[in-house]
Amino acid sequence: MTEASKYEQRGVSADKTDVHNAIRNLDKGLFPNAFCKILPDLAGNDPEYVNVMHADTAGTKTSLAYIYWRETGDNSVWKGVVQDSIVMNLDDMACAGITDNIILSSTIGRNKNYISGDVLSHLIAAAGEFIAEMQQHGVSLYLSGGETADVGDIVRTLDVGYTAFARLPKKDVVDIQVRPGSVIVAFASYGKAAWEKEYNGGMGSNGLTSARHDVFSNEYTTKYPESYDAVNMPQELAYSGSLKLTDIESQTGITAGKLVLSPTRTYLPLIKAILAKHRPAIQGMIHCTGGAQTKVMKFVENLRVVKNNLLPVPPLFRMIQEQSGTDAREMYKVFNMGHRLEIYTDAASAQDMIAMAAAVGIDAQVIGYCEAADKNELLIESELGTFTY
Amino acid sequence: MTEASKYEQRGVSADKTDVHNAIRNLDKGLFPNAFCKILPDLAGNDPEYVNVMHADTAGTKTSLAYIYWRETGDNSVWKGVVQDSIVMNLDDMACAGITDNIILSSTIGRNKNYISGDVLSHLIAAAGEFIAEMQQHGVSLYLSGGETADVGDIVRTLDVGYTAFARLPKKDVVDIQVRPGSVIVAFASYGKAAWEKEYNGGMGSNGLTSARHDVFSNEYTTKYPESYDAVNMPQELAYSGSLKLTDIESQTGITAGKLVLSPTRTYLPLIKAILAKHRPAIQGMIHCTGGAQTKVMKFVENLRVVKNNLLPVPPLFRMIQEQSGTDAREMYKVFNMGHRLEIYTDAASAQDMIAMAAAVGIDAQVIGYCEAADKNELLIESELGTFTY
Repeated sequence: MTEASKYEQRGVSADKTDVHNAIRNLDKGLFPNAFCKILPDLAGNDPEYVNVMHADTAGTKTSLAYIYWRETGDNSVWKGVVQDSIVMNLDDMACAGITDNIILSSTIGRNKNYISGDVLSHLIAAAGEFIAEMQQHGVSLYLSGGETADVGDIVRTLDVGYTAFARLPKKDVVDIQVRPGSVIVAFASYGKAAWEKEYNGGMGSNGLTSARHDVFSNEYTTKYPESYDAVNMPQELAYSGSLKLTDIESQTGITAGKLVLSPTRTYLPLIKAILAKHRPAIQGMIHCTGGAQTKVMKFVENLRVVKNNLLPVPPLFRMIQEQSGTDAREMYKVFNMGHRLEIYTDAASAQDMIAMAAAVGIDAQVIGYCEAADKNELLIESELGTFTY
Repeated sequence: MTEASKYEQRGVSADKTDVHNAIRNLDKGLFPNAFCKILPDLAGNDPEYVNVMHADTAGTKTSLAYIYWRETGDNSVWKGVVQDSIVMNLDDMACAGITDNIILSSTIGRNKNYISGDVLSHLIAAAGEFIAEMQQHGVSLYLSGGETADVGDIVRTLDVGYTAFARLPKKDVVDIQVRPGSVIVAFASYGKAAWEKEYNGGMGSNGLTSARHDVFSNEYTTKYPESYDAVNMPQELAYSGSLKLTDIESQTGITAGKLVLSPTRTYLPLIKAILAKHRPAIQGMIHCTGGAQTKVMKFVENLRVVKNNLLPVPPLFRMIQEQSGTDAREMYKVFNMGHRLEIYTDAASAQDMIAMAAAVGIDAQVIGYCEAADKNELLIESELGTFTY
């Protein structure tokens, strides 16, 4: 079966063609090549300011959190999915230059038959905890509230989304303009950053439908049929891996479930510090979400992007590849494979950014460079092989 | 079976106890008795301004839209649920004094097996259409974008939510302070307002789990099992009414499905005009959502609220009551029963507000008054009986 057909039969798509078609004619904002849509200052009507309003959810990672919680009683998974949902917003926005004073609002839908009031309390408390942690690292976030609805006829188990709003000086917007000659600094998605309490496997909130069903064991189809679309998903594709949620991944000593549930790391405090020091040298920042290592190609023109010195692939993604049998070329398109943030800059600034990252516990290195070309091309030379996109 | 137990078994609650417990300790904002949470001016840092960020969804009305679309091919239902989701935000915010320059962002989750790319296009276009209609009536809304995710493992069919942001002068906030001696003006939820293209049955976006399952025929359980929680809902409670979606309601000549799907009317252009003219005379504005005709009681103290001259109960709610056998006392707690907006004011201002409403095609009248009491009490004297709450 091709990967594309596997996505299709699991009800997802790698490239969101339908969505992009549906929004094709929408206005692209003031800086069409910024990482987020930049609006004029509707809130303040000041020509020197802009607004950004951004939405994202934890996607199907929430479904994995649910079955892990059912198996283990571990309530920390709720903090994880709240963080996933918030960080998917924050790190997109950070790549557009927004690093402080961000207002958040949640949209939570639950099936009351599976998700208790106690879980709601964990979800609400989690946002406050994450905000307090960020405050300790110099980033101010505010929770406005949100909607929490009992909608079991719509939501199988739980859906967790956040929307973020920020107003900032127009001059602070990072409009991506990557030039030939730039180097690429990548910042690890795994490890333990200064604002993290334990090892992070490196998972973001993309590719979770694949990861969940490719890695975990078929026993969950019968045990938790509410955790997936049991009617439409071909049985051979539902939880078709061999691992139990509580199997220990040998290199990390962490359960397979927790490893895949690693909360999406935020780079925000680091990006804030890097922008304060190196703004003029930054040609672009890419949050490697949908499209993963190929994401940058949506933002460049006539550029050959060479990634030939990648960070090591962490155990999480090795485990996913081993369980799924997905070819390495595809893995780099779906999973971040080791870094979820890249900054395009000059060689000297790169060295200082790497030092700044080390100071907050994040591995970083120059992973490649860009050169002029007559069309866009991405080359990945990695420990898993050489691939062009 | 009691109504409470019926809600419970359908996986909803009339009073959202779990949700209120979960958010009990959250900060209530600058004006704890305003209709929405009022934040300091995080966006502009001006002590004379405030911010509001608000989220809501179309709830399970989307599930009804789905089966109606499947039965009839009528794509207008998508415009309806987008309007539902947006207006549930707008009219809450309008009751707090926010009537213009509102930024919107969507959170849409779909099951790709049921919801096509074409439907997504309808959903995206609908927001633009609604915004254009409001512009024609003097209200500026802006669409920032949003998230649209393929999450069939989370969402059975479709979930449509919107989040809204606004910044406004602090002096414009309506802090609800209803005094003895005030009269209550109610504004019809049904009919045809100047900004509506056809008769509106009066449905908001509350009580839809009850309305859907109480009104419509059991044939939909087998035809569209994806439209509800078929595993957990007792079969005798699932689509337990007698009507088909396309049965004609005799008084309106509209199908039962379309009647229940009537898009939530916005009162925003009218509220904007009323605030501009009568702001000092307004003691409070109530959007009759969860709790319906009892909603106001959350915002008053030591007040006896008497509603003894209500607008006629429109055909929609008569149909729901007839199909469900719900007692009238409960109907007033779940459904708006004829008006979704009430303004607490003086008798003279009331008369002018009624005239202003008539000018935009909305029936309005003084439906009652408030008097001092040693505790809160609500009295409803209606064509359906007399009830105290």
